Amino acid sequence: MSDRQTQILEAAVRVIARSGVRGLRVENLAKEAGISTALIYYHFQDRAGVLRRALEHINDRAERYTEDARLSGDAREQLEQALLLEIQSTPAVRENSIAWGELRATAVFSEDLREQLRNATQAWADEVEALIRQAQTDGLVHAEAEPADAAGRLTALVEGLSERWLSGSITLNRARNLLSGAINAELGRRPAMN
Amino acid sequence: MSDRQTQILEAAVRVIARSGVRGLRVENLAKEAGISTALIYYHFQDRAGVLRRALEHINDRAERYTEDARLSGDAREQLEQALLLEIQSTPAVRENSIAWGELRATAVFSEDLREQLRNATQAWADEVEALIRQAQTDGLVHAEAEPADAAGRLTALVEGLSERWLSGSITLNRARNLLSGAINAELGRRPAMN
Repeated sequence: MSDRQTQILEAAVRVIARSGVRGLRVENLAKEAGISTALIYYHFQDRAGVLRRALEHINDRAERYTEDARLSGDAREQLEQALLLEIQSTPAVRENSIAWGELRATAVFSEDLREQLRNATQAWADEVEALIRQAQTDGLVHAEAEPADAAGRLTALVEGLSERWLSGSITLNRARNLLSGAINAELGRRPAMN
Repeated sequence: MSDRQTQILEAAVRVIARSGVRGLRVENLAKEAGISTALIYYHFQDRAGVLRRALEHINDRAERYTEDARLSGDAREQLEQALLLEIQSTPAVRENSIAWGELRATAVFSEDLREQLRNATQAWADEVEALIRQAQTDGLVHAEAEPADAAGRLTALVEGLSERWLSGSITLNRARNLLSGAINAELGRRPAMN
């Protein structure tokens, strides 16, 4: 992806996080990115093209801040870190969470992004499922846990808790504590190390 | 509440469920309700007044369909029914879920409904917590479950799963199965009856 495209997509995520998907117009995106509307049409064809690529960009960013955190420790610790990294008050994560929630909320009313959102959601759940399986193989998750179901629930819970936090119904700490507790409820407490 | 007010609020929930909060204008609400805009201003003062009362109305409706279902059985069964009733494809529940999700998504961008939404969210979690406590007293929930935390998570999960269902990322059945599984993960499987 060219630097110019990245610049436009970063601006698009900022606009969505500030004013919602419905606040995103090619005109104000051009202003935010400091370029002409013609250049946006050249790179992304139309507003729908911007939204599709913005959703991709949000996913790439989420993967990047997970990687940047250099998940450490055993599979169980990596799993916990990966999930908790999604609920943080850093500007980048907050912006990403708001934009992701907005794109999901928009898809309730419009078919446009549904397939892409479904695939991205599935890919995320698959990654979490793989970490759960590894932790289970390593004896760090109880044997009865069903990795695919637990991953479907934990990722849906991240979305539900994020929305509650971002809409001011619960604090960030409460959201993170509830998520930590959910991991224990789903996977059993970590066995004591000897 | 007068019949006329109910009529306007029912129309408001329909408009929100169809076009989102941002699609709700006093003019199209008047058209949907088959009345004059003056009458809307008379009863609700302004658009913000309509939104506040619509949120209340959605909560009342949710309580009503829970009551209509005449929750039966022991406290554990009542808890399971109360949660699963929130994810159903009946037109009333679907409309309610979409409108609730929309009001929450809107509150991410605007302070207006935050306090009311926080209180409504807390009241819902409190009801679920009371059912969990009762079930725990009756020996139908394992002793280590923390009712307030489990209630906070299960209600947030209902929201997360509903949004995934409504936005086409998972099927209704998958959402309901995941929710049932979460109840077992949080509260332990129901003890076998003798």
